[in-house]
Amino acid sequence: MVGRKLMERLAREGALGGEAITSVHGVDIVAPTPIAAAYPSTYEACDIAAPYIPPKLIAGQPDVIFLLASIVSGEAEADFEKGYAINLEGTRMIFEAIRHENERSGSAYRPRVVFTSSIAVFGAPFPGTIGDEFFTTPLTSYGTQKAICELLLADYSRRGSFEGVGIRLPTICVRPGAPNKAASGFFSNIIREPLVGKEAVLPVADSVCHWHASPRSAVGFLIHAATMDVALLGARRNVTMPGVAATVAEQIEALRAIAGDAAVKLIKRQPDAVIARIVAGWPSRFDAARGLDLGFVAETDFGQIIRAHIEDEHVGIVA
Amino acid sequence: MVGRKLMERLAREGALGGEAITSVHGVDIVAPTPIAAAYPSTYEACDIAAPYIPPKLIAGQPDVIFLLASIVSGEAEADFEKGYAINLEGTRMIFEAIRHENERSGSAYRPRVVFTSSIAVFGAPFPGTIGDEFFTTPLTSYGTQKAICELLLADYSRRGSFEGVGIRLPTICVRPGAPNKAASGFFSNIIREPLVGKEAVLPVADSVCHWHASPRSAVGFLIHAATMDVALLGARRNVTMPGVAATVAEQIEALRAIAGDAAVKLIKRQPDAVIARIVAGWPSRFDAARGLDLGFVAETDFGQIIRAHIEDEHVGIVA
Repeated sequence: MVGRKLMERLAREGALGGEAITSVHGVDIVAPTPIAAAYPSTYEACDIAAPYIPPKLIAGQPDVIFLLASIVSGEAEADFEKGYAINLEGTRMIFEAIRHENERSGSAYRPRVVFTSSIAVFGAPFPGTIGDEFFTTPLTSYGTQKAICELLLADYSRRGSFEGVGIRLPTICVRPGAPNKAASGFFSNIIREPLVGKEAVLPVADSVCHWHASPRSAVGFLIHAATMDVALLGARRNVTMPGVAATVAEQIEALRAIAGDAAVKLIKRQPDAVIARIVAGWPSRFDAARGLDLGFVAETDFGQIIRAHIEDEHVGIVA
Repeated sequence: MVGRKLMERLAREGALGGEAITSVHGVDIVAPTPIAAAYPSTYEACDIAAPYIPPKLIAGQPDVIFLLASIVSGEAEADFEKGYAINLEGTRMIFEAIRHENERSGSAYRPRVVFTSSIAVFGAPFPGTIGDEFFTTPLTSYGTQKAICELLLADYSRRGSFEGVGIRLPTICVRPGAPNKAASGFFSNIIREPLVGKEAVLPVADSVCHWHASPRSAVGFLIHAATMDVALLGARRNVTMPGVAATVAEQIEALRAIAGDAAVKLIKRQPDAVIARIVAGWPSRFDAARGLDLGFVAETDFGQIIRAHIEDEHVGIVA
């Protein structure tokens, strides 16, 4: 979803960091629907975990590589081997393909690599606010795979194979589309559905606090990571992105301010102990000072996140 | 060196955690010299980076696995592929072999795995004292490989494949044997050589501070990690070991107190900018509160480190 929105923005602007885009190659496990653009675009379905694929993707020496490919947390937990094959080995094989291309070219080829990591690299117990130097002790295989890729990204960058920037995304909210059953899905559901007059289920307590940014901000993070001065990063290539810490109660009040009581009444409380336990292990609040200093920009309150959704998805408010 | 001292102590005690040792299998890249023991011992030269090796090593279902195998920092930096093949893939293939054996046995087989990590998982800049929740941003490929193995150890343990304990060793001092040219070698050289009337070169300023423990303590860490109650670790399987923070000046004064001015006069100051720069990137001081709470024990001053060397290596002081 974020990858598609990135491609749409690139197509709209036709440039990245002030330079005209000459071509785009979009790859996903299922063939992406082409996006109209002024530059030539190719789209391909392939599995980055297949060893012959990464060298093919890098052979054309792309200047900027956005790595958003991964299987999600629940699937990586359910299928250990698939998670490691795609989220770790797939990424590592791309890094290796770039390293080989960099060596073959006598270091003339040294692309920008933007890797999307996640706040899942952190694991409870947490301090009230998580600072930029807090350690990564993931409690899922997905988080482990992301934390490992962060370390690889920093090492390959340090050695000059490429210029890597790793960005730890907050939970993206509001996700467009149909409600999904991911443990984090309700954060989007309780906003997106009531806005159009539909009911949504809230499975956790109103006191639950979490860390969010809009899809629009996520695309902004990716573009800033692709164009920023990497010298500012030094050896610490991975950055926690800014976001909004909001309790469910605060999210509901932001919805009320925008769409009224009728919308809020569509939120149905159905406590789910399993989801509550999963969510309790997630980080809720960061001091993302470094990300802000480096020029990454996010919303500053949850109302902005809702309004970004309304604008970007052209939502006609029903409630 | 630490592995050999561990094997010697196990042979001497004949037991681990109160249980008689029934057999030992010692493996290194060159065949280890056999150590006399009351239990059957086998020794083997093999390369854990060869994919057929790890399953063979695990097929006998050892109850306790000490993983000390790695190529050193300098070599991992000079040979990128060798470092990743041995320090990362070799370890990971052992973890995988255990996971498969665990699954085959219906989880009946779930060994203790003691992994030796290193303070090289940390990278400058540092706070004055590094706490137990400080992040791992290694500045070498060796440190990266160790940090990745720590993450894997925690994830495989969380999923029940084995009971892992990762211990981050301080710089081990005093290393017995001949002076070596590792960047950290001088810490041992300036003690070991003067004690027996030989000169030693000091390539850094007396103000340099570093984090040390004796080989004896390192063996103690390994044995405690193999026998401790892992429930105390929770999901955080990797622990910074306690040690002694001492400046070179303090180390020299400790030597003087034990062996006199004549010994100290054998230390020759020959500043080496390359070594000084490498050492400047190393951590110097930890608050290893968690390791101490978990029952790991190290020396508390540098004089104890020198005395451990004198006792364990049967050094007749010459100076």
